[in-house]
Amino acid sequence: MCSTSFSLTPIATIDGCYPDKFGVPRQPGLAPSAQARVTLREEFADPDAVRGLENFSHLWLTFIFHLNPSQWRPLVRPPRLGGNRKIGVFASRATFRPNRLGLSLVELLEVKVDHGVQLLIRGHDLVNGTPVVDIKPYLPWSESIPDARAGFAPAPPSLCPVTFSAAARQTLAQQPDPTTLEVLITEVLGQDPRPAYHSIKNERRYAVRLGEYDIGFRIIALTAPHQEGEERPIAAPAVEVLDITRLPSANAS
Amino acid sequence: MCSTSFSLTPIATIDGCYPDKFGVPRQPGLAPSAQARVTLREEFADPDAVRGLENFSHLWLTFIFHLNPSQWRPLVRPPRLGGNRKIGVFASRATFRPNRLGLSLVELLEVKVDHGVQLLIRGHDLVNGTPVVDIKPYLPWSESIPDARAGFAPAPPSLCPVTFSAAARQTLAQQPDPTTLEVLITEVLGQDPRPAYHSIKNERRYAVRLGEYDIGFRIIALTAPHQEGEERPIAAPAVEVLDITRLPSANAS
Repeated sequence: MCSTSFSLTPIATIDGCYPDKFGVPRQPGLAPSAQARVTLREEFADPDAVRGLENFSHLWLTFIFHLNPSQWRPLVRPPRLGGNRKIGVFASRATFRPNRLGLSLVELLEVKVDHGVQLLIRGHDLVNGTPVVDIKPYLPWSESIPDARAGFAPAPPSLCPVTFSAAARQTLAQQPDPTTLEVLITEVLGQDPRPAYHSIKNERRYAVRLGEYDIGFRIIALTAPHQEGEERPIAAPAVEVLDITRLPSANAS
Repeated sequence: MCSTSFSLTPIATIDGCYPDKFGVPRQPGLAPSAQARVTLREEFADPDAVRGLENFSHLWLTFIFHLNPSQWRPLVRPPRLGGNRKIGVFASRATFRPNRLGLSLVELLEVKVDHGVQLLIRGHDLVNGTPVVDIKPYLPWSESIPDARAGFAPAPPSLCPVTFSAAARQTLAQQPDPTTLEVLITEVLGQDPRPAYHSIKNERRYAVRLGEYDIGFRIIALTAPHQEGEERPIAAPAVEVLDITRLPSANAS
């Protein structure tokens, strides 16, 4: 029985605010404003199949980390641990895992059945084009265990402060919905999306794509005043948004 | 991208107390005493792959409903709704779903790496031989949402009272660990494992297998005293355990 392999057919596809892997939050809910559409593929787009789903506030999406290679590694270095401590792949939510299956809890905003079937979701962590292989309702009486012990990841990761340059502020103000865009940028960049092994400070410009925007940013080090008895000042990373560019051939959500 | 299909290789197999589908709880946690071993298959049985997992109290198992046919149905009749109301398959946790993927939150009791890799779990809802395709740690800060709205299933299903016949009591007392067995029988049968469309009362003997035991039971109707102004007495199902048989060729967990 167990030697059989099983075939998975994508039932839906993600179309949201993350055109690239870089910048995608490392868990859903870390960027609660991030919206996406889950479009059911033609053979599954039966309005009956989602009947009653609108009465649930949260959904599980099971999906494939389709941009990852199929090889897996027994040990991974979670960004949470600074990228210098290894843990087992099954003790992590890393993408380099056997079968490349991902699992995300997202908020359901709307079920649309007028042209095909689409679910509008919020607080996701999925790159555009992600193939979804299952959709299930969240059952709080069974799946909400606030006191569960969670090893190396007992709490949400801490966020960096995010500031905007004068140029970035100016572009922001000219956009159709500056507040929503500012919140999304702050949520996404506040997680310091750089690979974990980078030092706190360096001078290079990074860029992340959010929907139809290209966001340039750099990391600056915040230094606390030198405390007596400490060898050196405490430093923490912060993000400065340098520039915001609306891309011409945009196809935003 | 989306038209590709993906191949899943089972990484582990379940060996627990449910040899047959009949009697398996409809959600994990409904029979909290039910234990099982998750045995990693040889190519995945690297102790490194589970390093750090022992620091988590709860795990997600993604698995295949391998005893189900591959066909799916857009509408299902959840037992919770008495089997007479239809909802969409994606608004349910039904087994008749595209890709036949299951998702269960279980309690992790122990990680064993001395001979291969085995996880001892509790509170599961998996039939023996179930192929597991992913193991992930539970993250309470992201996945515990006690106030989530849960449509037709806002609370655990109500349980039936379970009584034991004199004969069943006698056999129970002769077993190595009568208390554990009694608790497991009560948890499993308290859910009235019959298909939902059966009437409250009928005279037939049902049997469920739990580990190395065959448990015979019947459904009896509890009737509340006739209340003034009501047309007929209120009736609710209860379970009577008729007999307990230890099977000779047992291979229990």
